[in-house]
Amino acid sequence: MKQSVETLAAFILLQLLISNCNICTMFINVPEVKVPRIVIIGCGFGGLELAKQLRKAEVQIVLLDKNNYHTFQPLLYQVSTAGLEADSIAYPIRKIFKGQKNFHFRMGEVQQIVSEENKLITSIGELKYDYLVIATGSTTNYFGIKDFEQNAMPMKSVTEALDLRSLILQNFEKALLTKDLHEQEALMTFVVVGGGPTGVELAGALCELKKHVLPNDYPELDFRKMRVILIENGGELLQAMNETNRKRASTYLEELGCEVWLNTGVVKYDGTIAETKTGKQLRTSGLIWAAGIKAVLIDGLNKDSINARERISIDEYCKVKGHENIFAIGDVACMVQEKYPNGHPQIAPVAIQQAQLVASNLKKTFKQWTLNKFNYFDKGTMATVGRNRAVVEVGNITFGRLFGWLAWMGLHLMLLVGFRNRVVVFINWVWSYINYDRNMRLIIRPFVRKK
Amino acid sequence: MKQSVETLAAFILLQLLISNCNICTMFINVPEVKVPRIVIIGCGFGGLELAKQLRKAEVQIVLLDKNNYHTFQPLLYQVSTAGLEADSIAYPIRKIFKGQKNFHFRMGEVQQIVSEENKLITSIGELKYDYLVIATGSTTNYFGIKDFEQNAMPMKSVTEALDLRSLILQNFEKALLTKDLHEQEALMTFVVVGGGPTGVELAGALCELKKHVLPNDYPELDFRKMRVILIENGGELLQAMNETNRKRASTYLEELGCEVWLNTGVVKYDGTIAETKTGKQLRTSGLIWAAGIKAVLIDGLNKDSINARERISIDEYCKVKGHENIFAIGDVACMVQEKYPNGHPQIAPVAIQQAQLVASNLKKTFKQWTLNKFNYFDKGTMATVGRNRAVVEVGNITFGRLFGWLAWMGLHLMLLVGFRNRVVVFINWVWSYINYDRNMRLIIRPFVRKK
Repeated sequence: MKQSVETLAAFILLQLLISNCNICTMFINVPEVKVPRIVIIGCGFGGLELAKQLRKAEVQIVLLDKNNYHTFQPLLYQVSTAGLEADSIAYPIRKIFKGQKNFHFRMGEVQQIVSEENKLITSIGELKYDYLVIATGSTTNYFGIKDFEQNAMPMKSVTEALDLRSLILQNFEKALLTKDLHEQEALMTFVVVGGGPTGVELAGALCELKKHVLPNDYPELDFRKMRVILIENGGELLQAMNETNRKRASTYLEELGCEVWLNTGVVKYDGTIAETKTGKQLRTSGLIWAAGIKAVLIDGLNKDSINARERISIDEYCKVKGHENIFAIGDVACMVQEKYPNGHPQIAPVAIQQAQLVASNLKKTFKQWTLNKFNYFDKGTMATVGRNRAVVEVGNITFGRLFGWLAWMGLHLMLLVGFRNRVVVFINWVWSYINYDRNMRLIIRPFVRKK
Repeated sequence: MKQSVETLAAFILLQLLISNCNICTMFINVPEVKVPRIVIIGCGFGGLELAKQLRKAEVQIVLLDKNNYHTFQPLLYQVSTAGLEADSIAYPIRKIFKGQKNFHFRMGEVQQIVSEENKLITSIGELKYDYLVIATGSTTNYFGIKDFEQNAMPMKSVTEALDLRSLILQNFEKALLTKDLHEQEALMTFVVVGGGPTGVELAGALCELKKHVLPNDYPELDFRKMRVILIENGGELLQAMNETNRKRASTYLEELGCEVWLNTGVVKYDGTIAETKTGKQLRTSGLIWAAGIKAVLIDGLNKDSINARERISIDEYCKVKGHENIFAIGDVACMVQEKYPNGHPQIAPVAIQQAQLVASNLKKTFKQWTLNKFNYFDKGTMATVGRNRAVVEVGNITFGRLFGWLAWMGLHLMLLVGFRNRVVVFINWVWSYINYDRNMRLIIRPFVRKK
């Protein structure tokens, strides 16, 4: 009898321990409140805007991101090419939302959506939601080619940009040490694959390094040997822009000394030799992959909700197909509209405008008002190609050269989060402009290629 | 007959290949010139100054460093505490020496000195020297205690400072997630071991984070629970300074909310619990070790040349004992003079003045003039303790508070390399001063404790 009482007590104790443990380790510690909880996954342009727009709403916002900062992706290429420090283009999330009472940030990665139970499974525990907004954005797409995944350099995050910066500088340090001309050729040849805005801007910045910066640092090297090659599968650069600007981009790059190879596909790359579709070989120890992006998907959504291009199908209210309380915005999502049969372009303005729509519709939902449909307002596009040269397109108006470049600078400064960042970026730009110089030439964490 | 000719040909070819290979992989690729080659190991304050002073000398300078940048160590603690970006306190070596024709930089680590052959063995090949100057500086000294080596955070390099910054921020992210009060206590308690300038400055900066910055970022945490404890083995802080300033440092720190534990030794630390000599236990997940430094020695010197404190014994000309053409300067070296029976303090001004002496003596050697002995000119010392508070000592004059703090700021700005860095650091300081804020709160590379 006594024994069974003891067993029972032990059993109860164990149950208590387990349930207690459930509380402390299973669910993420977020205050329980009576207003609806909106969980946002990802603090890119979309997630950031959404959380801001909801600041006065009677909701609880929980934002999850694997980093504690928002990255201003359009300027990543300047981090890679030693023009800006990482801290100038990234901004602490907690600081952005300082004082916003309904906002909670948790740093962690979401592993699964359990939509039947309205909860998420994450690296830091589980989390219930009333409404879920997926704003996970996109990552580099190697189209399944292992070669590139292993040997090419991506540039979609701050760490990747810093790795690329280290690689570029390490290559020149190595080029100095070798007497093997083939090795030196590989170390001094940089290939950018992909002729979209990222590829064009990066190739331009590399040419400026060649022209103004590196020859001062490495007087012992012959910089006529340094090559920057931009490779594009299609027949033109910047295919999202109009004809004038597409031509301009090529012209500007060639003026800067960049080789532009159009209609060329790269099919193989082992870390030192790249091979094109036509069998042409090219020695390079620095191949940067800017040829495609893919949505960052999370397991657990309805199968029908993922379209053929591996993006989340959303309706005109940004609602995910087959889910009542799950939304998706920005790069990860794909909304088919008459003018956009393949979805909208995967750029920041779309994400921001979708965030604004979802925020306003959520507020309307609580008041049971009629919801609005998404209507994309195209503000135009721009890309910079080095010093004094940029291509800008607003509606039917296009402009380039110095005027385009000034417009590009002004807009990017305006969009950067935080006054201090704007000031520091501005100083760095003015400094580089006057001195033809870049400052961030430190190999703080050497890049080591994965084997 | 034919066969033996073939064998001979093969043999010659093989020899050629081997000798050729020797050239390309064995010796570091540096131009062969007729003037003496001076090899400097390390680009800290000493190495940097020496190479600068020799810019007009008829010599070939080869500077070796494992990093491609010079670190302004006195401001490392501001990188750790999110006040400055790494790029502001580090400066690319190649840029410093831009245009200096007799200067060659090679990035690599020296593994051994082969003094009989006047050569070095390094991670990037071998290198002959005519004169060698060892300026390798110092690193964290754990006094052989494995516990601290594994679990405590050092702060002697840019990467270590960035790791510390990540750890501090990660601790608060974790503190938010846990409901275990013991764990939270550990995550919010920061212990700085060592009451020298580094410890004092770091503890002060941590207190400022507690007071002005973190509560805004983590409104859900109760910051009365955050503790900053400075532990010093001796009876006073800043033992190199005079009595007034030693007292001041304690007062200032306590005003900022720091607990100062004097006459306390830490003997154990497993990553969450630290134990003092007297058996007192303390929960902390952030123990920073600033309790000692040791010289960075390289194998291959005469055994007599290393003194009991593991520093290189040098004579009054900075020449290493028992070597004719090897010098050592700065933290790594120890010169016994009447006023300094245990050697000079291991601080930047000593390294810089020794570099100036060696440079001028080398130039005199070539002209066979009489050499000068080292005569240390003590310019005074200073340490800052947070906002508006610093202790400064110049000869017999001491001052503190705002005036000391302004002097500290002015001097450090002046000493930073590069105009851009000065401007950016100045803006960051003014910004933080007005806004009571720090900007660099990014966990760019999460810190992962070694197991």
